[in-house]
Amino acid sequence: MSDQNRSEYRFSTISFLSDFGYKDELVGIVHSVIRDLAPDVRVVDVSHGIEPHDVRAGGLALARATQYMAPGVVLGAVDPGVGGERKPVAIEVANGAAFLVGPDNGLLAPAVAMVGGATAAVVLDNAEYHLPSPGLGFAGRDVFAPVAAHLCRGVELSELGSPIDPIQLLPGLLSVSEQQEDGSIRAEVLWVDRYGNAQLNVDPDQLGEEWPDVVSITGGRVNRNAARVDTFSDIPTGGFGLLVDSYGLLAIAVDRSSAAEELSLAEGDEIVLVPSDAAPSLESPVTLSSKPSSERPVEGTEAPN
Amino acid sequence: MSDQNRSEYRFSTISFLSDFGYKDELVGIVHSVIRDLAPDVRVVDVSHGIEPHDVRAGGLALARATQYMAPGVVLGAVDPGVGGERKPVAIEVANGAAFLVGPDNGLLAPAVAMVGGATAAVVLDNAEYHLPSPGLGFAGRDVFAPVAAHLCRGVELSELGSPIDPIQLLPGLLSVSEQQEDGSIRAEVLWVDRYGNAQLNVDPDQLGEEWPDVVSITGGRVNRNAARVDTFSDIPTGGFGLLVDSYGLLAIAVDRSSAAEELSLAEGDEIVLVPSDAAPSLESPVTLSSKPSSERPVEGTEAPN
Amino acid sequence: MSDQNRSEYRFSTISFLSDFGYKDELVGIVHSVIRDLAPDVRVVDVSHGIEPHDVRAGGLALARATQYMAPGVVLGAVDPGVGGERKPVAIEVANGAAFLVGPDNGLLAPAVAMVGGATAAVVLDNAEYHLPSPGLGFAGRDVFAPVAAHLCRGVELSELGSPIDPIQLLPGLLSVSEQQEDGSIRAEVLWVDRYGNAQLNVDPDQLGEEWPDVVSITGGRVNRNAARVDTFSDIPTGGFGLLVDSYGLLAIAVDRSSAAEELSLAEGDEIVLVPSDAAPSLESPVTLSSKPSSERPVEGTEAPN
Repeated sequence: MSDQNRSEYRFSTISFLSDFGYKDELVGIVHSVIRDLAPDVRVVDVSHGIEPHDVRAGGLALARATQYMAPGVVLGAVDPGVGGERKPVAIEVANGAAFLVGPDNGLLAPAVAMVGGATAAVVLDNAEYHLPSPGLGFAGRDVFAPVAAHLCRGVELSELGSPIDPIQLLPGLLSVSEQQEDGSIRAEVLWVDRYGNAQLNVDPDQLGEEWPDVVSITGGRVNRNAARVDTFSDIPTGGFGLLVDSYGLLAIAVDRSSAAEELSLAEGDEIVLVPSDAAPSLESPVTLSSKPSSERPVEGTEAPN
Repeated sequence: MSDQNRSEYRFSTISFLSDFGYKDELVGIVHSVIRDLAPDVRVVDVSHGIEPHDVRAGGLALARATQYMAPGVVLGAVDPGVGGERKPVAIEVANGAAFLVGPDNGLLAPAVAMVGGATAAVVLDNAEYHLPSPGLGFAGRDVFAPVAAHLCRGVELSELGSPIDPIQLLPGLLSVSEQQEDGSIRAEVLWVDRYGNAQLNVDPDQLGEEWPDVVSITGGRVNRNAARVDTFSDIPTGGFGLLVDSYGLLAIAVDRSSAAEELSLAEGDEIVLVPSDAAPSLESPVTLSSKPSSERPVEGTEAPN
Repeated sequence: MSDQNRSEYRFSTISFLSDFGYKDELVGIVHSVIRDLAPDVRVVDVSHGIEPHDVRAGGLALARATQYMAPGVVLGAVDPGVGGERKPVAIEVANGAAFLVGPDNGLLAPAVAMVGGATAAVVLDNAEYHLPSPGLGFAGRDVFAPVAAHLCRGVELSELGSPIDPIQLLPGLLSVSEQQEDGSIRAEVLWVDRYGNAQLNVDPDQLGEEWPDVVSITGGRVNRNAARVDTFSDIPTGGFGLLVDSYGLLAIAVDRSSAAEELSLAEGDEIVLVPSDAAPSLESPVTLSSKPSSERPVEGTEAPN
C-alpha cells in the first residue's frame, strides 16, 4: 500500500515554486505550515530561486515543469503586489484533476494554459482557511500554504472563497514569435538556463524546409550565425548552435560554454532569426572586431561578412 | 491513519537550520544520517543560507520560524567554535513538547525564549548516541543529527548526556530598542530580507498615538523620512514606508525595490526613529545631493530640509 | 512498521546530486518524475550547487557523502557531454546492496570505489524505462530519474539495458599525492568548503613522526607555514593550521576565516608540503611583502625567512 493511497487525502503532493530564495526561512515556514496542517503531504520544491518579483520567469518555470508534476496542488508565490489589489486565488483545472493556488497576477496562467485551461476558480476570501496575519501578512504562509494543505485534505474549492469566472483571471503576458514578411522570425529569449542556453519562443516547425543549415541571429548587440544542429557536440568549435532543447523549443547554445554570456542575451531580449544563405564559415573563431573601421562595429559582436 | 500517528516515534519532524550553504554536500549528509537512523522522520529545511558563522542571523531566523514549526525536534547548526570550548546541547521546552539540538553558543536561545524557555537541558557527552568522527569531527553530522534522530525515536533526554541547569545556557545577545528622553527610539536592523525590507527591533505599539504619520530615520549614512503605511502599495512613489511586517515588527520598506540597498542598511546597523512634525514632502524624489556645499552631505543620503 | 519496510519497494531512498543549481526548475522536475513513478521513495538532495559541468567536484562530493547515505539508489547528474558520446549507465555495487545511476564520465567512479567497486553495470539503452524526450533530451529527467525510480521499485538491472563489463567504465581522474625524494609531499587541493578550508589529498599518516609541528606550504602564489593542530581553536592567531578534517584528510585552515582565500587556493591547485625545521614564528602577522627587493616576491605571499 503506497503513500498515495494510504491516507484519506484527495492529493498527497504540493508542487511549490516561489521567489523566496534560499537565504531566509520563508520556504521553511511554508513547509512547516503544510506539515502541520496536512502531515501526509509531500512538498516538491519546483524552485525558489526565481528572481525577486519576476512573475514572468516564475510563470515560465511553472509551465515548463507542469507536465512532469505529480497530481495534486501547485503552490506559486511570486507576488510583488502582496497586500495590494491583486487577489489570492485557487484555480481548478481538468475538472478537479489538479488545483493551482497563488496570486492572480499572471504567475499561474501559463501553467493553467498548459493543462487545458481553468474549469473553475475562487478568490480566497474565506479567512477560516487562513492563518492569522500580524501586520501586512505574508500570503505564502498565511493564505496559499494553508489553502493548498486544505485542498489536499479534500476541502471543496467552493468552501475556500467566492467563485469568479476563470475568464476574469489575469492572463500571462507571453510574447508570441512573429513570422515577418521577409521570411525572418522575430522572437524573444524566454529563458536563460544555468548553463547559458537561451531558449526562444520558437517552435522548431517554424523553421521550414526552406531554411538553410545556418541561421543568422540579430538583435541588440548580437549579430552572429548559428548552425542548426541536433546536439551540443555537433556545435562547431568556437561557434553557436541552434537546436531543439529538452522542452521542444529552439534554443541558442554553445558547447560547454554560455551562449547567453557570449551574445550578451538576457531573458526577455528580442532577436531576429534570418535564413543565412551566404553563410560565412562557421569555423571562424569568435573574435572581437578591433580593427579601425568606418562602420564602428558594436563591441562584442561580429558582423557576418 | 496519518504519518504522524503510524509510527512508534515520539516525533516525526525535524526542523533543520544551518549555515552549511548549498554548494557542498553537508546538508545532504545530515539528511542521510537522519534517514538512516529514523527513516519515518521528515526533515523540514528551515534554511541553510545563513552566512557562515552568523550565529545572530541563524538565531533570529529560527525564532521567526518557531511558531510555525510542526511539533518535534529543532536542529540548529551555526557553529563557529566547533571543536572548541562551546558545548553541544539538547534543550527541552514546554516539558517535552519539543526539543532543540545544537551548539550552546546562543543560536538556539531566541527560539527557546519564543516558546517559553527551557524546562531541561543536557550536554551531549554520551558518545553512544553519536557517529564516530575522524579528525576534528563535524558536529552537525556526528552529534546533532544522530541525537535529533534518537530524540524522535523516543530516547530520553537524560540518556543523551549530563544534565545542566538551563540557566547556564548561553543567552542570545539580542539588542532591545530604547525609548530615549527626547521621544525618539534607538533601534537596530534585525534582518534584511531577500526583498530588501529592513526589520527593526521595534514593536509597532512603541510608536504611540502622539507619533505623526511621517517618521525620520537617521543613523550611519541614513537621514530620510518614511511614511507610516499599512501596505507596500501605500508607500509613496520614490519614498520610504514604515510598516508592520508579517512578523508583527516595524520594518522599513520601498515598494518593489530594496529599502536596505537604497539606505545602505545592513543587519545589525543602529538607527534612530524620530517623530518628524516638520516633515518634508514625501513626494520629493530620491536624489543624491551633489551640489557643492560647506556641509558636505554624506554620499547617498538626503537631509530632510 | 517503518517507511522502509512498509512498501514493496526494493529501496525507499534516492540520493540525488547534480549541477542543476537552484535558479531553475530542473531539480524540481527530477523530484516530480520520481514522485510520479515511485511515490513511496524519499529523495535526499546531496547537493545541486556543484559548479556547472564540474564532474570532478561532483564526483568528490558524492564520494564524501557515500558512507553516510541510506541504502538505495544514487542519482548523479553532472553531464557536460549530454547527447554526445558518453553513455548513461546504472552500476550495481556490493552485489545489489546499492545502485548508482548517471553518465559514464567519471562522476560516479569515486563513490563506486568507496564502496568496493562495481559488481555489475548496464548501459541504459532500454527506452521502455525512459520518458519520451523532445529535442535533445534532458538525461536527468528522461533517463536517470525514471531508471532510479524503477530500480527502487524492483526492476532488475538487466532489464534496464545492455550489460557492460565494469572495467570499461570511465575511471575518476583523481590525483594521488606523491612523497618526493627530499621528504616533501606533492599534493592537490581536493575541495574548498564553504568556510574556506582547503582539503588535501593527503592522509594524515603520510606525515610521519619525523615531521615537525610546523609544515611549510608552497606552490603557486603560496609560501607559508602552518601549525599542525587538532582543532580550529588551536590555530595561532593570524596563522594557518594543518589539521585532520572531518573526512579524515589533511586540510589547511584558518580559525573563523577562509584559508583558501588568504592563500589564493582553488580546487585542483597543486601544493607541496615541506617539513619546516627552521620554522619562523607562527605569530608573525600575515603581511603582503611590499618592500622593494631584488627577489621580487610574488604578490600576496610571504617567504619564510
